[in-house]
Amino acid sequence: MKPALFALMIGMLAIPASAQDQVSLADRELHERLLTLDTHLDTPTRFERPGWRFDRWHDYDFDGSQVDIPRMEVGGLDGGFFVIYTAQGPTTPEAYARVRDQALMRAMAIQRVVAENEDKLALATTAADAERLHRQGKRIVYQSIENSYPLGTDLSLLTTFHKLGVRMASPVHNGPNQFSDSARGDVKHRGLSPLGRRWVAEMNRLGMVIDGSHASDAAISQMIDLSRTPLILSHHGPDALQDSPRNIPDALMRKLARSGGVMQMNTLFLVPMESAPGREEIEDRQERWEVLTPAERARLVADKAALDARYPPRFANLDLFMRSTLYAIRVMGVDHVGMGADWDGGGGLADMKDIGGLAAITARLRQAGLSEADIAKIWSGNTLRLLRAAEAGAAKR
Amino acid sequence: MKPALFALMIGMLAIPASAQDQVSLADRELHERLLTLDTHLDTPTRFERPGWRFDRWHDYDFDGSQVDIPRMEVGGLDGGFFVIYTAQGPTTPEAYARVRDQALMRAMAIQRVVAENEDKLALATTAADAERLHRQGKRIVYQSIENSYPLGTDLSLLTTFHKLGVRMASPVHNGPNQFSDSARGDVKHRGLSPLGRRWVAEMNRLGMVIDGSHASDAAISQMIDLSRTPLILSHHGPDALQDSPRNIPDALMRKLARSGGVMQMNTLFLVPMESAPGREEIEDRQERWEVLTPAERARLVADKAALDARYPPRFANLDLFMRSTLYAIRVMGVDHVGMGADWDGGGGLADMKDIGGLAAITARLRQAGLSEADIAKIWSGNTLRLLRAAEAGAAKR
Repeated sequence: MKPALFALMIGMLAIPASAQDQVSLADRELHERLLTLDTHLDTPTRFERPGWRFDRWHDYDFDGSQVDIPRMEVGGLDGGFFVIYTAQGPTTPEAYARVRDQALMRAMAIQRVVAENEDKLALATTAADAERLHRQGKRIVYQSIENSYPLGTDLSLLTTFHKLGVRMASPVHNGPNQFSDSARGDVKHRGLSPLGRRWVAEMNRLGMVIDGSHASDAAISQMIDLSRTPLILSHHGPDALQDSPRNIPDALMRKLARSGGVMQMNTLFLVPMESAPGREEIEDRQERWEVLTPAERARLVADKAALDARYPPRFANLDLFMRSTLYAIRVMGVDHVGMGADWDGGGGLADMKDIGGLAAITARLRQAGLSEADIAKIWSGNTLRLLRAAEAGAAKR
Repeated sequence: MKPALFALMIGMLAIPASAQDQVSLADRELHERLLTLDTHLDTPTRFERPGWRFDRWHDYDFDGSQVDIPRMEVGGLDGGFFVIYTAQGPTTPEAYARVRDQALMRAMAIQRVVAENEDKLALATTAADAERLHRQGKRIVYQSIENSYPLGTDLSLLTTFHKLGVRMASPVHNGPNQFSDSARGDVKHRGLSPLGRRWVAEMNRLGMVIDGSHASDAAISQMIDLSRTPLILSHHGPDALQDSPRNIPDALMRKLARSGGVMQMNTLFLVPMESAPGREEIEDRQERWEVLTPAERARLVADKAALDARYPPRFANLDLFMRSTLYAIRVMGVDHVGMGADWDGGGGLADMKDIGGLAAITARLRQAGLSEADIAKIWSGNTLRLLRAAEAGAAKR
């Protein structure tokens, strides 16, 4: 039996009924055929957890996990950008050294996980790599940096991460840093700092794709103006559906599209955030799932169910996510929209809790009247175009 | 059939007859039983070569390679310190950034190779790790830095490498650098520089073993005085047998022993170095063995044979290596001698061209009248004692 067909059958068993209903066999076949990438997979935060293995099946309801190799197979996700994320901290030399090491260890963990699963995964650094690996049936592991804070004030470290294979980076996360203002927190630089402007030039020189997600609207706009190659917003959304600092207004969406850039549709910030007392404590326990005793696991699942009953988690559903996606296509055009749902970074839908159900998105896109060629652009074509543009920009110098 | 016994039988086929003659079945059984470590394996220089695989058998006469997993099994080598080596270059910020990246990529390559072979190899960071992994039948991969040049003037990078699992480092290679004078080249600091003294303190603080090999005699002596825990000379020899800047006089050997340190016996510098015109060109071609055509490989082997006939390579033989080892034991005592033969770094013996024949050393040590307990110290006990001392030194602070 062909692996794809096998995955198909397993997939039909595993997809939650709610999303399953919308996926015909033809839709799943199309979904399997496409090269599918998600541009913001936060899964590497799990790679350093004791006992956690990317090659094992995990259950969202147990440990909150949304992405692993078995579910990539079931969900027909061929790969994506695996994120080297660090939380923003102080901008001091000591903190810079500490966070540089955290980012390097995260990069190391990604390389280790790929090497441990070399039969199923491979690192990719060019657009052509993705197409080659897809033909070979391997899952595609691009690397990206979320928050350039670990570079400190030493832009030569961007070369280090480029050598490690990283091909996308964002300047900032929550709260302003040495490079840029953030969508959240104080305005410190009115967009980019002078160092942030040099960061843009260095990203261009190296041929890396600049990711505007988490930057302030002003910083995104300035990066579009400054960058010699188009921006990506690796996990983002439109203000029109839900006003949020992490979404952008139509005017900025249009500016992004005019410059050749792409917005990758986020599942988050489509409904107001929930903030249940006790949620963080539950999540802390989930992070230690692998080292919990059976009794501790049972108590965790019960506690989470009780909390969810009192404070229902506020996720968008697939309907709303598709409305957001189709809105973005209407405003920007199909060449400027992609997929970056913030899996393992807080994302997910009420009726699609992990990547196992991704084929439903393909089904909905087809139902909305999009051609296979257009759906292919959304699932990877637009992202690969940005990678190629960054590569060509670097080569031109 | 037990893996050890199988390795034994293969080993008896594979060991060159010259060394084979001296190895009884009892000697090989002893050798298999012992935990054997070599403290200076330069093999990681090969890990980044296109097509080179650590899990495949290689032939010294073809590509000059001396260590891989199959030959570790045949030679009964349980592990060692795999070296992150960088050649000395300019002490400028630009060169520092470049060489920092080289060292990080080398560390990454070591992690990748271990992950790719997780059934046979494991990273080790403590003395206890080696003993545990030996019981599990895994080969033990410690990491060390040869030449701290990649740290630039930023000692916080030592923490980075410590986090990556590195537990041993030398300050310098050939030619003085920012930390220390070298056994070769100009005297610049009369031993250690002020930064070199801070490097010693930082090594102690982190609990890493200081490696004096390649440092000048003055620098070795100063490091013995300064360091709170004993030094290793990871691949070194006595001046008494062959006067060389890379060997040390009896007085310094005694000072090392009195301080609790250990000299790991080198196969190099026991005879004058050969310098045949054309040798480097042959070695350059050997480094590209995996990507040569069959015709190119045949020509290389013929060219090397012709060069060897005109300029016989000057290797010590096992007799001379054992004389050096037994001399060091006489001068320093059996608690202060170990094995670090510079495999894949230019080392080797005329009658032991790769690690496949290591059991002959165990045989010779027994013939020289050493007890099993003493032979165990030489093969790993003394090295692990230094690791434990470094760990305890760090813990005490």
